[in-house]
Amino acid sequence: MNQYIRQSVRAMSGYIPGEQPHGKCAASVIKLNTNENPYPPSPRVKKALLNFCAEDLRLYPDPENRRVRRKIAEIHSCNIEQVFVGNGSDEILALCSRAFVENDGSIGFFVPSYSLYHVLTSIRDVTAQPVNLGPDFQWHMPDNYHASLFFLTNPNAPTGILYPKKTVRSFCECFDGIVVIDEAYVDFSSRHCIELALELDNVLVARTMSKSYSLAGIRMGYAIGPCQLIKALFKIKDSYNLSRITQEVAIAALSDQQTMHANADRIKHTRRRLASELEQCGFVIYPSETNFLWVMPPKITTETFYQRLRERNILVRYFPGNLTDSFLRITVGTDEQTDALLEAVRLILNANGA
Amino acid sequence: MNQYIRQSVRAMSGYIPGEQPHGKCAASVIKLNTNENPYPPSPRVKKALLNFCAEDLRLYPDPENRRVRRKIAEIHSCNIEQVFVGNGSDEILALCSRAFVENDGSIGFFVPSYSLYHVLTSIRDVTAQPVNLGPDFQWHMPDNYHASLFFLTNPNAPTGILYPKKTVRSFCECFDGIVVIDEAYVDFSSRHCIELALELDNVLVARTMSKSYSLAGIRMGYAIGPCQLIKALFKIKDSYNLSRITQEVAIAALSDQQTMHANADRIKHTRRRLASELEQCGFVIYPSETNFLWVMPPKITTETFYQRLRERNILVRYFPGNLTDSFLRITVGTDEQTDALLEAVRLILNANGA
Repeated sequence: MNQYIRQSVRAMSGYIPGEQPHGKCAASVIKLNTNENPYPPSPRVKKALLNFCAEDLRLYPDPENRRVRRKIAEIHSCNIEQVFVGNGSDEILALCSRAFVENDGSIGFFVPSYSLYHVLTSIRDVTAQPVNLGPDFQWHMPDNYHASLFFLTNPNAPTGILYPKKTVRSFCECFDGIVVIDEAYVDFSSRHCIELALELDNVLVARTMSKSYSLAGIRMGYAIGPCQLIKALFKIKDSYNLSRITQEVAIAALSDQQTMHANADRIKHTRRRLASELEQCGFVIYPSETNFLWVMPPKITTETFYQRLRERNILVRYFPGNLTDSFLRITVGTDEQTDALLEAVRLILNANGA
Repeated sequence: MNQYIRQSVRAMSGYIPGEQPHGKCAASVIKLNTNENPYPPSPRVKKALLNFCAEDLRLYPDPENRRVRRKIAEIHSCNIEQVFVGNGSDEILALCSRAFVENDGSIGFFVPSYSLYHVLTSIRDVTAQPVNLGPDFQWHMPDNYHASLFFLTNPNAPTGILYPKKTVRSFCECFDGIVVIDEAYVDFSSRHCIELALELDNVLVARTMSKSYSLAGIRMGYAIGPCQLIKALFKIKDSYNLSRITQEVAIAALSDQQTMHANADRIKHTRRRLASELEQCGFVIYPSETNFLWVMPPKITTETFYQRLRERNILVRYFPGNLTDSFLRITVGTDEQTDALLEAVRLILNANGA
């Protein structure tokens, strides 16, 4: 029955999300593999759920998602027509691949960066125009580079590196296609690029509530950019792409910027401590402006290190592949989780005679 | 900046959902325009929301949606590998258009039926192969008909007509592409086609929780069909397409088949009464196996009738266009809403000297 399935879909592999332990074992695992926030979302989320009228679920949500878009417009001092919301920022990235790329077009992105971009390119069955980062994971654009759409992750993942706004701006100004600046991790960094999306006619900024707002489970992301581009996304989205509850919960969390920033500050504080202690253990650490660290372990191979941590119920992320397989991506957890991680790291190194 | 937007997207219009009144006026409107269920969902939904742990929202949902798929498999006596779940059945229909249609392929559907199919064809920028229904809205397949994918709505919307299973089966057995039997309204009808999806290798059945389960606001639909086709949908879906809350609420509602069936029975009862009273007023009524009626008003034009109802705060659906503009689609509401509708109908007809 394979003949029914589109050739490109048959040929591709889907995106592989980080492991989500379930059942009884989930509770005993220290989960530092999918960049979730270790702290709970705003207490207003709980309140919104308790106050939610279950009977209203019989009605469709607002297809234009106006209330939540208005709240986002308020936060970024822009118009509601410059705001799009999606079922996670993943939906927004996928919609961009369908709205801004002709069948003979192409999609560009850094390698390494978020591996979903490559999957989206395969789904659209268009040409990938990857830009390989240097061994230092810095960004050097090749001459005469063209693509219909470029996913620019800033800060980048899995490396945690933030590219200077000046560099991003001059790339956007010269690029002849659409640039989607994926700012999934921006609340853990020192600078953002929203102003480029409000100023240039080929730039969208994508955000998610999964990381800094501690709402990976609710599926909510948004994009800011020129009205014409936002309108194009509206034309092709599923009619009711956000549930009533997602919209209510998002409004509650967005209305409490204080909790979000307080959690981000705690994570940045722990990030500094974790980086400095791992460095003392001999790790190579890249400067992170995200809620994770990109590190190279000493003494033993990265894959073995990953396995040893796993045996101790500590999940981190290991990406096989040429540029990435010397590194681990470690999500910054709570202070307790960090202590447990550091203890495990020392035991693993000691067992190897370090 | 239009040059950035894909040509086909520039050329198309988006799907236009039925009006969703909001703000203060919403409460005074009798809303019979989007086939929502007038009764609340299972009481277990409220309980699931009250018991939901807001802190868990910091974690991603299960990307494979296993618990809710297991529940659906149990209901339809099939394997979990034969079950796909989506952010509304709309997401599933859209995924099918991407998984089973090559760029030079085509998508077929009845005219009239769910107008989203045409929008999905435009988004994919492939050829539409519409099959015009006769003036009786019956289905006569043209000779030598081919398409990569056919959306077969059964019972059909906006007509409410159920096509015999024998006819559906013989179409599926002869058709050389994928058939998606869209059973959005099937719980209000006397027969379903799940067995075809479990038996034939080119058939999927799509279901939604928006109608019979009173959960339009939660965005949850599912598909049943051959493992290979389900696998293809998994490859191209957004990694985490259902929120944690949607999954929890869906499991609660699916576990209470009794409430769903009781609500469907009440609606079918009211449907019979509404049909018979409208017939007495001179309406032409089509036999409905859904939660709406497809009716032709007497004396005055359909568009005027629609407007007169609207002036009385009663929203029904009017579809301009050749085959449809003599008809109104009226969602079956509560008994009170039905009384109010019938009273308005009589007043409108009397005012026109009927």
